[in-house]
Amino acid sequence: MPPITPLLDTVTSPADTRGMSVAQLRQLADELRAETIDAVSQTGGHLGAGLGVVELTVALHHVYETPDDILIWDVGHQAYPHKILTGRRDRIRTLRQGGGLSGFTKRSESDYDPFGAAHAATSISAALGFAAAREAEGRDNCVVAVIGDGSMSAGMAYEAMNNACEIPGQLTVILNDNDMSIAPPVGGMSAYMARLVSGGGYQSLRHLGKSMVKVLPKPMQEAARKAEEYARGMVTGGTFFEELGFYYIGPVDGHDLNALVPILKNAREIKDKPVLVHVVTQKGKGYAPAESAADKLHAVVKFDVVTGQQAKATPNAPTYTKVFAEALIKEAERDEKIIAVTAAMDSGTGLDLFAKRFPKRMFDVGIAEQHAVTFAAGLAADGMKPFCAIYSTFLQRGYDQVVHDVAIQKLPVRFAMDRAGLVGADGATHAGSFDIGYMGALPGMVLMAAADEAELARMVATAAAIDDRPSAFRYPRGEGMGVEIPGVAEPLEIGKGRIVREGTAVAILSFGTRLGESLKAADALAARGLSATVADARFAKPLDVDMVLRLAREHEALITVEEGAMGGFGAFVLQTLAEHGAFDRGLKVRTLTLPDIFQDQDKPDVMYAQAGLDADGIVRGALNALGLDNASVAGRRA
Amino acid sequence: MPPITPLLDTVTSPADTRGMSVAQLRQLADELRAETIDAVSQTGGHLGAGLGVVELTVALHHVYETPDDILIWDVGHQAYPHKILTGRRDRIRTLRQGGGLSGFTKRSESDYDPFGAAHAATSISAALGFAAAREAEGRDNCVVAVIGDGSMSAGMAYEAMNNACEIPGQLTVILNDNDMSIAPPVGGMSAYMARLVSGGGYQSLRHLGKSMVKVLPKPMQEAARKAEEYARGMVTGGTFFEELGFYYIGPVDGHDLNALVPILKNAREIKDKPVLVHVVTQKGKGYAPAESAADKLHAVVKFDVVTGQQAKATPNAPTYTKVFAEALIKEAERDEKIIAVTAAMDSGTGLDLFAKRFPKRMFDVGIAEQHAVTFAAGLAADGMKPFCAIYSTFLQRGYDQVVHDVAIQKLPVRFAMDRAGLVGADGATHAGSFDIGYMGALPGMVLMAAADEAELARMVATAAAIDDRPSAFRYPRGEGMGVEIPGVAEPLEIGKGRIVREGTAVAILSFGTRLGESLKAADALAARGLSATVADARFAKPLDVDMVLRLAREHEALITVEEGAMGGFGAFVLQTLAEHGAFDRGLKVRTLTLPDIFQDQDKPDVMYAQAGLDADGIVRGALNALGLDNASVAGRRA
Repeated sequence: MPPITPLLDTVTSPADTRGMSVAQLRQLADELRAETIDAVSQTGGHLGAGLGVVELTVALHHVYETPDDILIWDVGHQAYPHKILTGRRDRIRTLRQGGGLSGFTKRSESDYDPFGAAHAATSISAALGFAAAREAEGRDNCVVAVIGDGSMSAGMAYEAMNNACEIPGQLTVILNDNDMSIAPPVGGMSAYMARLVSGGGYQSLRHLGKSMVKVLPKPMQEAARKAEEYARGMVTGGTFFEELGFYYIGPVDGHDLNALVPILKNAREIKDKPVLVHVVTQKGKGYAPAESAADKLHAVVKFDVVTGQQAKATPNAPTYTKVFAEALIKEAERDEKIIAVTAAMDSGTGLDLFAKRFPKRMFDVGIAEQHAVTFAAGLAADGMKPFCAIYSTFLQRGYDQVVHDVAIQKLPVRFAMDRAGLVGADGATHAGSFDIGYMGALPGMVLMAAADEAELARMVATAAAIDDRPSAFRYPRGEGMGVEIPGVAEPLEIGKGRIVREGTAVAILSFGTRLGESLKAADALAARGLSATVADARFAKPLDVDMVLRLAREHEALITVEEGAMGGFGAFVLQTLAEHGAFDRGLKVRTLTLPDIFQDQDKPDVMYAQAGLDADGIVRGALNALGLDNASVAGRRA
Repeated sequence: MPPITPLLDTVTSPADTRGMSVAQLRQLADELRAETIDAVSQTGGHLGAGLGVVELTVALHHVYETPDDILIWDVGHQAYPHKILTGRRDRIRTLRQGGGLSGFTKRSESDYDPFGAAHAATSISAALGFAAAREAEGRDNCVVAVIGDGSMSAGMAYEAMNNACEIPGQLTVILNDNDMSIAPPVGGMSAYMARLVSGGGYQSLRHLGKSMVKVLPKPMQEAARKAEEYARGMVTGGTFFEELGFYYIGPVDGHDLNALVPILKNAREIKDKPVLVHVVTQKGKGYAPAESAADKLHAVVKFDVVTGQQAKATPNAPTYTKVFAEALIKEAERDEKIIAVTAAMDSGTGLDLFAKRFPKRMFDVGIAEQHAVTFAAGLAADGMKPFCAIYSTFLQRGYDQVVHDVAIQKLPVRFAMDRAGLVGADGATHAGSFDIGYMGALPGMVLMAAADEAELARMVATAAAIDDRPSAFRYPRGEGMGVEIPGVAEPLEIGKGRIVREGTAVAILSFGTRLGESLKAADALAARGLSATVADARFAKPLDVDMVLRLAREHEALITVEEGAMGGFGAFVLQTLAEHGAFDRGLKVRTLTLPDIFQDQDKPDVMYAQAGLDADGIVRGALNALGLDNASVAGRRA
């Protein structure tokens, strides 16, 4: 049963909140919280973060003239209440579904999302761009960035804060401090923020906040002047931010609208320096099952609103993530030089399991991929065997470090690239589409993709054994194929693929977990009288040249299949075939890749079909190569 | 005439400095400075930075037991004195030449270079890796990272500092503050450091430093205890660093060995927290022509030691960098929405010229590529037309932001990718090898490469006109071809190449400035009776499919030529040809790319020959494709 929300029902846009009293805003926040819980109970998604910022969302839209004033949420997974308030309530129960609302902010969805997000720590940089544009155009809109404390470990947040004092005019950064991103935060900055909050200032400020309300009805000219003095006077710590050129205001109770509203109004008027408002919130606030959960119900599947009980998943096989973690633990038991490194994704990468077994051999460096990669390079340079586990999409953050600190120095850092390929409900921002190309282009890199979970275990063993150069292996989100995992995984021979099924007419050369669909495609082709060889490349680099040339020589057509963008595995195969003159006498060849678009969120099956990377798509590719079908590849890519 | 260096002549390794008195170290520093100046006068290279750290270099090797103690120089362009002291004096006049010493630190050169560098801000991350390895192995060596104040604007330096307090045991970070990286530094951090130095603490510390010398001869047990107290007491500011969990010591006069030596000895003993020693140095110190130059002789060609007069270059044509800047200024004169963004490379990218003309429309955000890209995305999201000028190799630092903040949002940020391709003396770390692949893989990106300086001007105009999606254009280091630049550059038709020379037997399809060599190759082929078509692709994305298919159809062989790694332009051409069945009936095809190695520094001509991307190499590729030559491509790649 949907919650009863009489006041929220009257709000069609944020403008409707501007005349409300704080008491009404309080009621609106309560209704908004109930609506958020109900919606996410039906869709699944990120819950805890949104519940933590309900009051902040209401206060921001009340104080600022959105969408003319620019409000940028970092990451955007906390923006469900924002979406409900900004004209998307009627679609809120389509969150993260095919054709539905994104689970993050998205420019194409609404004018109230001036800058989309999903990866952490981009909001201050983007806000500075909006502020600089405002100054260039002589406009007077406000610009506000909201960023979580977890994101403050990311270098780009610091880069932006360092630059903020150089951009004139109003800019407000709201530091949403819930002492918890996905995992408990790490690092000196986190400890510093904890000291700010635990200091005496926080308590006394709550009183200050209340007394300030009385100030506001005074004439605005004087109020503006006083507001600034107040803001200065309110500093109870925050020298770190002050030293970077910000006014620091806080800490402020982020659930107390009596404090939030006047403080935001004051901050809005300060234009001689950027302002940082340190807001303390509680992740999962106002929903008992979330407040009491260890992860504050960060991300959930559908659940029962009353009990908080989440729908049970019925796993068929362990996830690739877990298989990776268990394989790495096995290797680490045999080799004490193995060290694991994660960038704030300890449970996402399975390294929480590793840390349980080897607490001193796992390093979570925070949301800090650049540092994670070079830290791992330092470990390798001193003789250790680091495994750096980072999602494919996030490793883009450390690309220069992979090139400059790892590959050029030929250091044996092992990259475990989780979430490679399509990721379903998380959509385009989280897809791991580009790693085959950007890693495979690097001289000396060994680049593998696992066809199933047994192969993944072997690749972990292979990477552990490679000690004279960097290596990387990719594997997708989700469950494995259900195959048996070897008790002792033997390292693979570097640069050797395997023939999985022998045929005659067409060769399907798969790199990664599309091998299963390739085999299904071979069955379908057999039903049409076409005998297909299916091979698992295992390595994109070094490529199994002998096998590739043999497949080209012995078949009329060769199809490559990969869950990655153009310029990747298929491209390497073609360049190798060209180099060896394999096209001179004719070869029917197609490279099946992810399509050259950013695919929107959907069910994985739908996305694979759209990409032409399911069995049907592979059959189509083969028939097209053989000239036996009218379906044009161009059509597939449209 | 080489300088007279009696004390330096006795030093064969840093161990020889350990028994020296401060007075002897002073003499050694003077001789080392003279030797550095003399060497660089013959080789050219980075001068100012090295001169600024002569005393620091001597003090570090005197105090620490290198190479067992780990000493990591950030960037490494200041490490010439370090190279002279660490057994490389006999090769110091081969700096930056083919087969000679690298202009940066390099692991393969010496045990005293435990971690190579060239890009900024990697040293603290690497040092933490060494520290973590030491703790894992139960060793007791020290780890020291030296980092310049300019590098402190880089996010990865912050990421590492944020993580430092989580790694137990000794770690010393030397902040080498010369208030000047390549350009004067920017940002809040820079202003903060200036306040630290200008505060009263600096002067009083100089006395402190002198008085500390008396402390040292006391028994070590007590000295160690006192040292720590001293270190604490010396704090005269530095709360920023303290808040991140460091002990802050400084500012210290980096040219006063009486202060440096005891302070480093004290810092070495502190093991309960990481230590930051803030050392103030003067870039170009001790060499009058450098001290008085605006850029402190940051990077020089050969020069006269007495006068500092640099050998005159005799330019044949303006550099691509300058052509870019002037073309952008022209566009900006017509369109006030054009904004330029650089990441601490204002003169390197030519944007210093732009800033002179439009001081309010150029933003130097510091060494902060992640932020630079997303800042530009924010500008574009608010209707401006940002040109983000970043060297190809440094744009790797902002790759995720290009994907996530620009490409996914289809924002019209224009990327000017300078130093694309080989870069000569700067070597592998600065080569722009990968941008074609990593940018071309992105859906919606327009990717161009200029064949000459007139084309570059047209591409600037083209990028200015593209306002519905991101675009990028690449151009190399060095001078243009000497062609006339159009007074008014007209935008190119998106996705259309051009045939430059018509032939019959073989088609050479060039992407970028190898067009000139391609034309020379066509001449050479003509001399052998082979008629060659030469085409300029202009666009790697969208590719001119019609032209590519026509070239394939009308010639026996097709050769692609690009100054980039595998998985780039040639790969895209092959994937397109495959998609259209162009190989079905046979096509002799080769993709000439940079070889799959990291090429060491050398003269550009030598490097192009090694890469097979000069006219000879292109001829070889064509003959090889046509089956007219026994030279195997595999040989070329060895």
